[in-house]
Amino acid sequence: MIQSTVFQLDDYGPWTVTPTPRAEMDLQTLQSRLYADVASFVGERGGYVFYTRGDNCIAITNGIDRETHRTLQRSIANRYPITCSMGIADGETPAAAVADATAALNAEGSAQGGTRTERLAGSTLETSATLSIAHFDIVDATGRLTDQADAYAVHMAVQEWATTLSRTLYQDHDALGFFVGGDNLIAVCPTLSEATYAELIDRVETETHTAFRVGVAAGTTPHEAGIEAKHQLELAREREETVVMAPNALRPSQSEFAPEH
Amino acid sequence: MIQSTVFQLDDYGPWTVTPTPRAEMDLQTLQSRLYADVASFVGERGGYVFYTRGDNCIAITNGIDRETHRTLQRSIANRYPITCSMGIADGETPAAAVADATAALNAEGSAQGGTRTERLAGSTLETSATLSIAHFDIVDATGRLTDQADAYAVHMAVQEWATTLSRTLYQDHDALGFFVGGDNLIAVCPTLSEATYAELIDRVETETHTAFRVGVAAGTTPHEAGIEAKHQLELAREREETVVMAPNALRPSQSEFAPEH
Amino acid sequence: MIQSTVFQLDDYGPWTVTPTPRAEMDLQTLQSRLYADVASFVGERGGYVFYTRGDNCIAITNGIDRETHRTLQRSIANRYPITCSMGIADGETPAAAVADATAALNAEGSAQGGTRTERLAGSTLETSATLSIAHFDIVDATGRLTDQADAYAVHMAVQEWATTLSRTLYQDHDALGFFVGGDNLIAVCPTLSEATYAELIDRVETETHTAFRVGVAAGTTPHEAGIEAKHQLELAREREETVVMAPNALRPSQSEFAPEH
Amino acid sequence: MIQSTVFQLDDYGPWTVTPTPRAEMDLQTLQSRLYADVASFVGERGGYVFYTRGDNCIAITNGIDRETHRTLQRSIANRYPITCSMGIADGETPAAAVADATAALNAEGSAQGGTRTERLAGSTLETSATLSIAHFDIVDATGRLTDQADAYAVHMAVQEWATTLSRTLYQDHDALGFFVGGDNLIAVCPTLSEATYAELIDRVETETHTAFRVGVAAGTTPHEAGIEAKHQLELAREREETVVMAPNALRPSQSEFAPEH
Repeated sequence: MIQSTVFQLDDYGPWTVTPTPRAEMDLQTLQSRLYADVASFVGERGGYVFYTRGDNCIAITNGIDRETHRTLQRSIANRYPITCSMGIADGETPAAAVADATAALNAEGSAQGGTRTERLAGSTLETSATLSIAHFDIVDATGRLTDQADAYAVHMAVQEWATTLSRTLYQDHDALGFFVGGDNLIAVCPTLSEATYAELIDRVETETHTAFRVGVAAGTTPHEAGIEAKHQLELAREREETVVMAPNALRPSQSEFAPEH
Repeated sequence: MIQSTVFQLDDYGPWTVTPTPRAEMDLQTLQSRLYADVASFVGERGGYVFYTRGDNCIAITNGIDRETHRTLQRSIANRYPITCSMGIADGETPAAAVADATAALNAEGSAQGGTRTERLAGSTLETSATLSIAHFDIVDATGRLTDQADAYAVHMAVQEWATTLSRTLYQDHDALGFFVGGDNLIAVCPTLSEATYAELIDRVETETHTAFRVGVAAGTTPHEAGIEAKHQLELAREREETVVMAPNALRPSQSEFAPEH
Repeated sequence: MIQSTVFQLDDYGPWTVTPTPRAEMDLQTLQSRLYADVASFVGERGGYVFYTRGDNCIAITNGIDRETHRTLQRSIANRYPITCSMGIADGETPAAAVADATAALNAEGSAQGGTRTERLAGSTLETSATLSIAHFDIVDATGRLTDQADAYAVHMAVQEWATTLSRTLYQDHDALGFFVGGDNLIAVCPTLSEATYAELIDRVETETHTAFRVGVAAGTTPHEAGIEAKHQLELAREREETVVMAPNALRPSQSEFAPEH
Repeated sequence: MIQSTVFQLDDYGPWTVTPTPRAEMDLQTLQSRLYADVASFVGERGGYVFYTRGDNCIAITNGIDRETHRTLQRSIANRYPITCSMGIADGETPAAAVADATAALNAEGSAQGGTRTERLAGSTLETSATLSIAHFDIVDATGRLTDQADAYAVHMAVQEWATTLSRTLYQDHDALGFFVGGDNLIAVCPTLSEATYAELIDRVETETHTAFRVGVAAGTTPHEAGIEAKHQLELAREREETVVMAPNALRPSQSEFAPEH
């Protein structure tokens, strides 16, 4: 079971142009710092949060209770010129959890309109559960891309790769992929077999002409699974393998999640 | 003429896994704060900087001299556990400027390897020049996307739109588009006609099924052009028009830049 | 029982002048942000931390365990160019707890010398305990000081008041006072009677010619006691009283702590 | 001539207790980050700003014009839940400049009351001028204090020293001293002779039983003077001298400023 939290700034769009448009770098500074604060808070408690749209962030929050969410919400209001609402839900898959967390949030009112303020909707998981994190990176990104092509072309190549990989993960496996900088993409996944990862990588490599690999691990929090996935990815680099999975991430393939899209 | 700066952390990849992989949320906090500092610094001086890959950021820095770059570089070393190298160059188009800035930087050494530290390569523009900023956003993103679909599906839809729009701008017009959060994409552009923007939007709408519009303005710094582009975008919203351009952004179409890719 | 943590940057003094002295505002930015991060981290867990010397901070950390301290320590190393060691201890009085926490830290090595890195010394309280917070402020500081005298003269007057009040609290009651900005001083105190607070205020007013008042409350964490002390201080303002104490802070005066300095 | 800016948050006191008192560590986080932003902004432009009361900060801003102040003011409003007003003035001495900057600010309205918002009062220096910075620190603070006594006792000793030294500088020389962390005190000074510094140190050592020394230099901005003062202080450490002054700080003693308090 996955617990997800969707963070959404209240009435942020209108604020950015009231009374007149605000300087873009001030907005970027605000969004980045706010995200850094949320990442720090959620991360210290074992969770993961991703920037996504800046004014809407998606988190995996297994193990973080409602009162702790409230503490973060109050801190944001005390530090920033805007407030934040949150929707929390759990689901069998990462995609299902985010969908329900969004529904809980949207039931509280529109992201814009000025009437919704600091709502905290939905409920947290009562029990501990296992989740999987897959950490992908590009093979020799520095040698093949960063040191070779111009910075914008590399950025575009990485974006195309990340977008294609994320779309495939989402459509075929109800997994959620997030680009996290450099040449790294972190995905919150249902239990998937090594063969599934290998096939997925084959398919996306064919489409994007970008060679990449993955380390996978399971844990009761995103941090626990994610830090072990990084170790597996280090092994994949050393061994020049494409998929390396921690033993705890290897489950019978028959239980594999296969959504009917 | 466009002046661009490429910021690149020195030997960052190895640092993130030495002696063992660091917690992902610590890395996200570091990258976001560092970007916020750079955005703040560059923004106060009229420039724009975009997150792109986090460890590699692309800036448009018309009007910011070499010594000011050095001040920023020293401040980063004084505040963070890593250092940053920079390449600066100018060009007839945004794409050309970034390509040359990257080349200047890469000539100083690899992004990884541990021998390059705090290099400042390339040179700044001697004279003032005009540049164009185009600020795009999605029509009724809140009503059609944010309040309707789940947060991840909206994120993916926005990413697909941003990636497609950016690729078109880059390939056809040597312009550089950057997703800046919410439903906003900012592009640094050569002088393009209203008809060119209209046709570009048509094409990307057909491909992504996402309706969007643009405000365009020119100025001697990104901030000057960008804040006016935001005003033009506000007019586009009010008038329900697709392209609204400030008078200073309207130039004879014959001078329009048309690269031969 | 009070649990205190002393934070001390490792070898910070030498770092500030190596290879040559660093810009003072870079150091101030670093120190303030580091403190903000520690304040945020400790505060979210119910603790209080005070800036004191910037490179040495004193915290009251009842309820925060050793592993949580370690998480903070690692985060600092991941975000800043310096590392931090910590000493933890408990004591019957705030002064005794800080003395033992310092002793635990100093036993790990000198603050300077380059051999001590990221030590975590001492141990945390096994059980929950009650502590008192006294929140002092100056009567009509805005009307009598801020709006009247020049900013530096007011700053000096507030410093003299804060220093005198802190010294009296420390010498006579083993309490620890910290100036926290504006005209506010927060003290972590043993159980003291209303008469003791009244007499203390009388004495310091005579010495500093500054009229002030106090709100006092008890709790199992600094935040719990401190937020209630603020409510008591609000009551003191409304009622124009000098000392207002929450019922839970009123204990028999015979148990009052009276150190023999 | 000294140019000083006094920064004052608008109606901050009431905000901290509306609708109910806010968590102290949230306030400390806010104040520290705001100060870090101001320190960074002012510092990059050659100025110095000191925390003083957190909601009131004192800066020396030679070389920073009015429009630059406005940029900072707008950035604060865009990033924080509160706004800031500023008073700017110049004077023959640091004390005179701050007094006039405060008067300009106070003429715009009370620090509290809710009617004053984002005022920018006073005017900047038209010409470049020289100022002196004296950087003081305690002799072997680590060996004699930090590694020996408990953290609070050391904090108190340093505060007493800083307060006594600041009071003496202010009353006798119209100089402004600010504790900047560790065992460091930075003073913005009129031109004073080596004998004056030596006598000042003698007097404060007698009163506080704390041995300390000073490096002094002049420059056209606080940063220029201050970084050279740090170099002089390094020389004082190496040579075990009490006062070391850069040649440019040595002026005929007859021009020495001697206010008639």
